[in-house]
Amino acid sequence: MASLPGAAAVLDRQDCSNGCCGEYNREGGSTEVAETFKAKDLIITPATVLKEKPDPGTLVFGATFTDHMLTVEWSLEAGWEKPHIKPFQNLSLHPGSSALHYAVELLEGLKAFRGVDNRIRLFRPNLNVDRMYRSAVRLTLPVFDKEELLECIQQLVQIDQEWVPYSTSASLYIRPTMIGTEPSLGVKKPTKALLFVILSPVGPYFSSGTFNPVSLWADPKYVRAWEGGTGDYKIGGNYGACLLAQCEAAEKGCQQVLWLYGKDQQITEVGTMNLFLYWINEEGEEELATPPLDGIILPGVTRQSILELTRDWGEFKVSERVLTMDELTAALEGDRVREMFGSGTACVVCPVSDILYKGQMLHIPTMENGPKLTSRIFSKLTDIQYGREDSDWTVVLS
Amino acid sequence: MASLPGAAAVLDRQDCSNGCCGEYNREGGSTEVAETFKAKDLIITPATVLKEKPDPGTLVFGATFTDHMLTVEWSLEAGWEKPHIKPFQNLSLHPGSSALHYAVELLEGLKAFRGVDNRIRLFRPNLNVDRMYRSAVRLTLPVFDKEELLECIQQLVQIDQEWVPYSTSASLYIRPTMIGTEPSLGVKKPTKALLFVILSPVGPYFSSGTFNPVSLWADPKYVRAWEGGTGDYKIGGNYGACLLAQCEAAEKGCQQVLWLYGKDQQITEVGTMNLFLYWINEEGEEELATPPLDGIILPGVTRQSILELTRDWGEFKVSERVLTMDELTAALEGDRVREMFGSGTACVVCPVSDILYKGQMLHIPTMENGPKLTSRIFSKLTDIQYGREDSDWTVVLS
Repeated sequence: MASLPGAAAVLDRQDCSNGCCGEYNREGGSTEVAETFKAKDLIITPATVLKEKPDPGTLVFGATFTDHMLTVEWSLEAGWEKPHIKPFQNLSLHPGSSALHYAVELLEGLKAFRGVDNRIRLFRPNLNVDRMYRSAVRLTLPVFDKEELLECIQQLVQIDQEWVPYSTSASLYIRPTMIGTEPSLGVKKPTKALLFVILSPVGPYFSSGTFNPVSLWADPKYVRAWEGGTGDYKIGGNYGACLLAQCEAAEKGCQQVLWLYGKDQQITEVGTMNLFLYWINEEGEEELATPPLDGIILPGVTRQSILELTRDWGEFKVSERVLTMDELTAALEGDRVREMFGSGTACVVCPVSDILYKGQMLHIPTMENGPKLTSRIFSKLTDIQYGREDSDWTVVLS
Repeated sequence: MASLPGAAAVLDRQDCSNGCCGEYNREGGSTEVAETFKAKDLIITPATVLKEKPDPGTLVFGATFTDHMLTVEWSLEAGWEKPHIKPFQNLSLHPGSSALHYAVELLEGLKAFRGVDNRIRLFRPNLNVDRMYRSAVRLTLPVFDKEELLECIQQLVQIDQEWVPYSTSASLYIRPTMIGTEPSLGVKKPTKALLFVILSPVGPYFSSGTFNPVSLWADPKYVRAWEGGTGDYKIGGNYGACLLAQCEAAEKGCQQVLWLYGKDQQITEVGTMNLFLYWINEEGEEELATPPLDGIILPGVTRQSILELTRDWGEFKVSERVLTMDELTAALEGDRVREMFGSGTACVVCPVSDILYKGQMLHIPTMENGPKLTSRIFSKLTDIQYGREDSDWTVVLS
């Protein structure tokens, strides 16, 4: 049954039109292909007209952009071009670009905060560029030197520093993106790409200044991610597919989707956030639990920070474990659930009050319990972000 | 445990920022929002400089574009604008566009053929616009009148009719696309969108004029689609995620990925094609089988045409059924496999010769068996496409 000659002959004939046989990121050798862009090569074209800065209190998330943006072009032939900071402007894209047809696109999200000392801090940006690098590999997009990207982002924020709100409840959201700009319709590894970073001042997530809990719709009808898929990468395709479920949740009177997975209806993520359950577990232990990074969970920066923080406290068990709807329901019946919350860059933490599941609204007593832990985590992380507490988790802009 | 007031209050507070509460496609009422664009409103701006037409024999798939394109803009406030046929040009997109960050993007693929009678035919284009409509709903993109889109596409092809190759082995590939152009970073139903159609002349899929079979890499490491996901919609997110697997297949000396699914390693699709197995099944019956449309299989136009055609022949059993690697392996051992082939718009049918599975190259005797059925289907469908045979499956351009 074995017959090997076919395969070699066939590849030969096709001459690897995928472009997979050529390595993008050579470890030396060619002197013409730039393996990475470099911050020292930044070309800066300042905006001649500066926009008026909005009142942080009235901002809609991600709808206002600053005066500048960073762009870096890449091609298979030349490698990375020089990075360019220039006036915020539309992109001119070939209509065949692979980002528009095949979702060859990744994203990141992080924030710059103006601290109580008026210094501007980024929160663990190295974790974002690490994740971005991973996403690039997953999508066969070109990789880059992570430190150089971070330095370019810092220079961009520096130039638009007046856009970092003078507020300890607002911040400047940073959106690094990379898209395939391959100008042809074959489904293949792109030979052109564009990395760009845009900035958007954002107001407080909770407008009233206190936590507003969210209600969730839990239904196995839509599945966000699966083993062998891309749910653990921050790439475009994971998001567009969620919109219909989000709309259906809203129609059912809920604000977010609680994403279930598998026959045992594991609870995995909340909307675009990671999920935490603070409870007395089946063994009677006080536990803060979040689903493990088993391939279907996004490795969130806030998620990781909460795990490290609470493990450092050493006051209760901190677990990365599978959690099912049955386990949650049993815990609710046994009055063992203290708090449930989502975590993410936009909100830091977001309490959950209700879950609509199988036609019944399950009440989660997060707010009735303070929410003590949710509030403590929120305070701790925002203390670090706004410079009220020193931490090596922040990078201070020079 | 039930607590309902929270949900209503919460929606109130949030004021449905998802935009899900407003219906896009009102059934009358408003006179200001255009529910669809109309072909009679087409604005035509002819290109002043026409490009040179390439030799069909040298064409790389999807890399050459014609002189014109169709664009139609949509916004929540105004609905659809007038459709516009204009010179092929770059798109100017806001860098926050939801297509670039969240893969709010769908695609279609169909072809125009120049027949032996010199008339230009589209092959079952109604199936493509039907599927495009379904994809739009899945992505919360705006819907449209399907007949109007079809008429606009026909007018576009008419204008670029000299780009339809004078060849019965080449054709003009038509790529309708719709992208979310929502210019803000919230993950939400877009309030702006752009539908566009581009055209690309394509040469023969099999350059030698005879079938060249492909070898496949079958490994459960990467999973293309899953229940509750979007594998049965033609949307961008399904494709970008495939590139890494495609590259890994090439590294292993194979040309395409055989996508497996589930613990029983069902064989589902091949690269970006549907899959057919022509064999003597477990019951000893002569059968043409393809996986069922159970949510993880793209409902291909060629797939459907092959099913209808062969069922009409009535010469052997035609089934939509689950097929597993174990069943295939057993059939190979029992010498019960006659032909395996992929189906799609690009190639019509593409024979499979080998499958690399668990370190062993399984030989599929497709070519040794003619391939009789594969060739017969290819001839029949291309006879219809090139007008050698009359059929109500083609739409002849007037």
